[in-house]
Amino acid sequence: MVGGGAGSFIGAVHRMAANLDGQIELVCGCFSSSFDNSRATGRRLFLPDSRIYATYREMIEKEALLPEGERMDFVSIVTPNHLHFEPAMLALGKGFHVVLDKPMTFTLGEAWQLKEKVDKTGLLLALTHTYTGYPMVKEARFRVRRGELGKIRRIYVEYPQGWLAENVSESENKQAGWRVDPKRSGIAGCMGDIGTHCFNLIDYITGLTALDLCAELNSFVPGRLLDDDGAVLIRYKGGAKAVLAASQVAVGEENNLSIRIYGEKGGLEWRQEEPNTLLLKRNDKPGETLRTSHAYLSAAAKHNTRTPGGHPEGYIEAFANIYRNFALTLQSRMAGEEPLPEYLDFPAADDGLKGMQLIETVVAASKSDKKWVGMVEF
Amino acid sequence: MVGGGAGSFIGAVHRMAANLDGQIELVCGCFSSSFDNSRATGRRLFLPDSRIYATYREMIEKEALLPEGERMDFVSIVTPNHLHFEPAMLALGKGFHVVLDKPMTFTLGEAWQLKEKVDKTGLLLALTHTYTGYPMVKEARFRVRRGELGKIRRIYVEYPQGWLAENVSESENKQAGWRVDPKRSGIAGCMGDIGTHCFNLIDYITGLTALDLCAELNSFVPGRLLDDDGAVLIRYKGGAKAVLAASQVAVGEENNLSIRIYGEKGGLEWRQEEPNTLLLKRNDKPGETLRTSHAYLSAAAKHNTRTPGGHPEGYIEAFANIYRNFALTLQSRMAGEEPLPEYLDFPAADDGLKGMQLIETVVAASKSDKKWVGMVEF
Amino acid sequence: MVGGGAGSFIGAVHRMAANLDGQIELVCGCFSSSFDNSRATGRRLFLPDSRIYATYREMIEKEALLPEGERMDFVSIVTPNHLHFEPAMLALGKGFHVVLDKPMTFTLGEAWQLKEKVDKTGLLLALTHTYTGYPMVKEARFRVRRGELGKIRRIYVEYPQGWLAENVSESENKQAGWRVDPKRSGIAGCMGDIGTHCFNLIDYITGLTALDLCAELNSFVPGRLLDDDGAVLIRYKGGAKAVLAASQVAVGEENNLSIRIYGEKGGLEWRQEEPNTLLLKRNDKPGETLRTSHAYLSAAAKHNTRTPGGHPEGYIEAFANIYRNFALTLQSRMAGEEPLPEYLDFPAADDGLKGMQLIETVVAASKSDKKWVGMVEF
Amino acid sequence: MVGGGAGSFIGAVHRMAANLDGQIELVCGCFSSSFDNSRATGRRLFLPDSRIYATYREMIEKEALLPEGERMDFVSIVTPNHLHFEPAMLALGKGFHVVLDKPMTFTLGEAWQLKEKVDKTGLLLALTHTYTGYPMVKEARFRVRRGELGKIRRIYVEYPQGWLAENVSESENKQAGWRVDPKRSGIAGCMGDIGTHCFNLIDYITGLTALDLCAELNSFVPGRLLDDDGAVLIRYKGGAKAVLAASQVAVGEENNLSIRIYGEKGGLEWRQEEPNTLLLKRNDKPGETLRTSHAYLSAAAKHNTRTPGGHPEGYIEAFANIYRNFALTLQSRMAGEEPLPEYLDFPAADDGLKGMQLIETVVAASKSDKKWVGMVEF
Repeated sequence: MVGGGAGSFIGAVHRMAANLDGQIELVCGCFSSSFDNSRATGRRLFLPDSRIYATYREMIEKEALLPEGERMDFVSIVTPNHLHFEPAMLALGKGFHVVLDKPMTFTLGEAWQLKEKVDKTGLLLALTHTYTGYPMVKEARFRVRRGELGKIRRIYVEYPQGWLAENVSESENKQAGWRVDPKRSGIAGCMGDIGTHCFNLIDYITGLTALDLCAELNSFVPGRLLDDDGAVLIRYKGGAKAVLAASQVAVGEENNLSIRIYGEKGGLEWRQEEPNTLLLKRNDKPGETLRTSHAYLSAAAKHNTRTPGGHPEGYIEAFANIYRNFALTLQSRMAGEEPLPEYLDFPAADDGLKGMQLIETVVAASKSDKKWVGMVEF
Repeated sequence: MVGGGAGSFIGAVHRMAANLDGQIELVCGCFSSSFDNSRATGRRLFLPDSRIYATYREMIEKEALLPEGERMDFVSIVTPNHLHFEPAMLALGKGFHVVLDKPMTFTLGEAWQLKEKVDKTGLLLALTHTYTGYPMVKEARFRVRRGELGKIRRIYVEYPQGWLAENVSESENKQAGWRVDPKRSGIAGCMGDIGTHCFNLIDYITGLTALDLCAELNSFVPGRLLDDDGAVLIRYKGGAKAVLAASQVAVGEENNLSIRIYGEKGGLEWRQEEPNTLLLKRNDKPGETLRTSHAYLSAAAKHNTRTPGGHPEGYIEAFANIYRNFALTLQSRMAGEEPLPEYLDFPAADDGLKGMQLIETVVAASKSDKKWVGMVEF
Repeated sequence: MVGGGAGSFIGAVHRMAANLDGQIELVCGCFSSSFDNSRATGRRLFLPDSRIYATYREMIEKEALLPEGERMDFVSIVTPNHLHFEPAMLALGKGFHVVLDKPMTFTLGEAWQLKEKVDKTGLLLALTHTYTGYPMVKEARFRVRRGELGKIRRIYVEYPQGWLAENVSESENKQAGWRVDPKRSGIAGCMGDIGTHCFNLIDYITGLTALDLCAELNSFVPGRLLDDDGAVLIRYKGGAKAVLAASQVAVGEENNLSIRIYGEKGGLEWRQEEPNTLLLKRNDKPGETLRTSHAYLSAAAKHNTRTPGGHPEGYIEAFANIYRNFALTLQSRMAGEEPLPEYLDFPAADDGLKGMQLIETVVAASKSDKKWVGMVEF
Repeated sequence: MVGGGAGSFIGAVHRMAANLDGQIELVCGCFSSSFDNSRATGRRLFLPDSRIYATYREMIEKEALLPEGERMDFVSIVTPNHLHFEPAMLALGKGFHVVLDKPMTFTLGEAWQLKEKVDKTGLLLALTHTYTGYPMVKEARFRVRRGELGKIRRIYVEYPQGWLAENVSESENKQAGWRVDPKRSGIAGCMGDIGTHCFNLIDYITGLTALDLCAELNSFVPGRLLDDDGAVLIRYKGGAKAVLAASQVAVGEENNLSIRIYGEKGGLEWRQEEPNTLLLKRNDKPGETLRTSHAYLSAAAKHNTRTPGGHPEGYIEAFANIYRNFALTLQSRMAGEEPLPEYLDFPAADDGLKGMQLIETVVAASKSDKKWVGMVEF
């Protein structure tokens, strides 16, 4: 693991998600730019000192020299955005598969290079777009893809959070610190951090191709250098239209991602904070409440569920679904077998590239006087 | 009453709303352009034949000749949009107060004239923007106006319906028929019918002044001449930003108007389909669930409530609040008294004008290549 | 109207419910034992002084002498429980139909006499068990009666309120005052006031016959003479079992009546505070959310609805359904026609008798050491 | 681990819960009475064959001979109820700590012996009453214990499930099979399986002492030998009253455990299927919605949470809280330190004994003609 030392949020989540199913074991790490933090973290995680490294470069190089079966099988990179590209390229270069937090890179250019590297090496890269790991999101995809809603017309995706409504110094909140800093976060704040999840959710469920968009990004908190809020209208190939609204200054909201999709024949609604429910809507019939773990669900939803209905599965389980599918794919490949289709169901380099495409386009569109700005090349 | 014959939806609602509190009595009407329908309706409503009229012109003129105390005190106009202006002007001209369905008129020009007529005659005009009649909307206004949320930053207002998702002929659905017909509805469909409610709700609660907007209107149903869906970004004086999303093709949605408002210090949320609940949100305290009819509410909320908490009041009661406040104001004026401030709390000509301003601007903006289009003069 | 003067809650509700549909006109009243209150109330309601009476006896006798077409058609009795029987008997004796608030009488003996009087005179008596007036309760009845849930096994009905959690003096709260006074309320407090609604709801929806019950009534508030809380286990003919839990000391609850019914094949759930939703549940299919005013509902549900889906109808509309059906039945009979089946759908003397039966049995059972006490004769 | 082979539900949950926080490693197991199943399971879990045992006796004895640091530290027993006592006694006898699924034993007598053994050996025994592992249940306990609701009056706890509504053969559903078999489940079915959770939840949150109870158990499914449904009225020391309703034939319900507690000053509500929300209710103030992971929560709630607000934690996390606190206590003791109070917050032998006490009393009370039956000695 690269990153995830004391004070990190997402590093701990990666570890719990990787642990959950007993398929993955943490064997080494460079958890912080501070070796003290890294060593303390590693020891707390029961790693021997020999597998706790001072730099990711050292880790990747030394692990590559260990005998097969002993060295790590893949590396999880859970650092801020500006520190995604280099360790990922290095790991791939040394033959390691990669799990990478989103957004994929600091710039679109890096994303292109990384994607090429993945293609060239044939190694796996999983991107932790957590929300597509929920079973009911997979069910939504299944229903939309098989045409249950008819042709898609209207999409509302929104992601209000409130935690950045005030100016928080880095010492108070390490998470807030790097996210509002253009040097570590990239050209977008809110749109990079959570807008990409919204865009990815539409993409995952519908498969529609975005053509162009109209965007207004805002920095509501005085002195903030990056957007902390934004609204985007997106036009898709085939005529579907989306409103994407994301905010980190929506006081009192926690992590209230939701998506509603309406086609010619039906609608659906999913809310992340109550993730085990998927609503199906029609005009001429009662609404249906689909719930995780029932026999009437698709194979994809079932494969990504661990407990019977009414035993709520949450964020960590969704995250773990990415890790588990990644691990199952890896195990299949190591065993020389073709991975099952449901194993391959995790976000990868293409998804990362699309996220970077959104960031580039939305920032350009927000600055533009033109109403519609075409998606940057993909 | 003008309009509201067999097949009308809103006419019956007006009558129930007017009946509810026993302050208003229906004394005459011209309920349809068909005299047969009008007479049948009038008789069903226990009117004597002498007070059932063939045309609104006849009604207004003849009623004006009746002795005071016998003739009607005011006229409710509940016809399609293209038939608002003339009867309203005529009634005001003959000295009758007016209750008028929204949007106020067919064109902005008519709205200006009507507004001037109201000002000149000093008569009352109430516009039935129903949703501001709900007690918890009044509470929201109270809380925002006294600064409980701090300076407003971000507003989401949305109004998804699904009932126009297919092409319905007028014979099947009289309501649908005129709403999709530019000759009777005006230049906007969905935006005139429900987008104006959204805009009015922001205005009523926050009092903010819209500066300009960016709009995309859609006609999803093949052959439809007016918009049946739209998304609008609005910029307000002082820096607040709104997303207004309205749709009549959101299959499976009923009448799902909602508003969420976030300021520097707090947020609030209200949903029309569960109207007796208002959510208050903060980052550092538990969310609060305010409920109709409690002692902790504002005087405005209490004045517009009829039953103890937990006895749900709904759409008709909200509608009746407009009628009751209008009637109380009228009674005060008839008694030579100054109406209490809570009596004056009903939508009036200014609100109607703002609605027409939205319609004009949003249609122009949708056609424009410019990102931002200033609100037409007001 | 008898009762319903200043300070009354339910009298005003009766009037709004009667007004709503424009089928009923208030023509006279004796609104209070204080003639001053009565006269003030009557004048506020636009009654001429000649039709405002000092006593209900005077009113009933004098109205009976008025010519047909002028005198009242029926009388609404909205007084505390100890003042139900006499005016109702008197009115029936003089040939007037009656609308009566629940519970029907002060004692079971009175109930028997009143029921006999109704049978003998052939006049109508409607009992305002409001909650069966909701369209979705009618839908629940329809679904259960046609066997959609299979044979009924398990019923949970509950009615928690919090408003009597403290000792309130009558001067502070007139509603609370008489309800906790055995001289005016009868032998039961909470069970008479709201427990009877629970029992009626089971009866209305399922038609099951209660055999015996086990009860524990509590008086939590110090000094309270009647029960303010209770739990009852009921055994029904055919094997169904119910838990009936009612409380007026459930702090923070408003009027949270709900019922859940489970049969061999399915379950359903309805909650009064969100009355336009009925949930249908199965093990092998997604849950269904039925909503007021949709085409897929039963005729009974539709007949008792006034607005399109998503325009919430509430407590007053449910109450008005009782009045409207009563009025439609009366109109049919006055016109010499057979009332339609849906007109006859209002609670009547039998329902009142069953409520008194519950009160008697539950109070006896609570005092008994025996586990099961048979329902008193019916 | 003893039990948890192919076909087991709770065994897999135990393993995920133990894995989640990276504090516990599975080192050996006897997963099934079939050695084939056991071996296959063990290999799937990456255990060496040498640590996969044919019988729990063999496992416990052989592990005890392994050097410290290599042998297991504790044993998890996840078998059906009739197979709890012997392996637990054996493990304690050999010096191993124990994690045990609930109910603690097959009979109350066994429970007494096991409790004595725990006391005598001084070893740890954790009982997986999962639902007290939720952070918002811990918050409820904190609020009640510090008197926020005032003196407790009324408690409703309910646990409707629908999965046993039909007669399922063991070959179809292994879970259902042993639960309805008196030879493996004990004298109670539904009450042992889920009624004990209800009773434990009241106990954990309020600390009240049950005095006596009135019970009606039902076996609705034809041919079923144990209860599949039941309702219990419980009287607590100090005057609080509870209704406990549990059912496994409530068609369409998943795992809908909930508890509502009302005191003199306030009420609270928690529902397992939406576990990250705790509602606080008062008569004179808006209801409050407490949510997992906020700064305003108690230390106990925070200690048992892993992610920021709005990232839902569910059943596995609640389960893992028991394992983590057990592990932290064990680590403290191994390190010769006093465990922190929050480490000791997991269900133990006393809780198991109370559960068995409920089972004995409730079954006796259901058969009795007496209304109230005292709790069996504890």
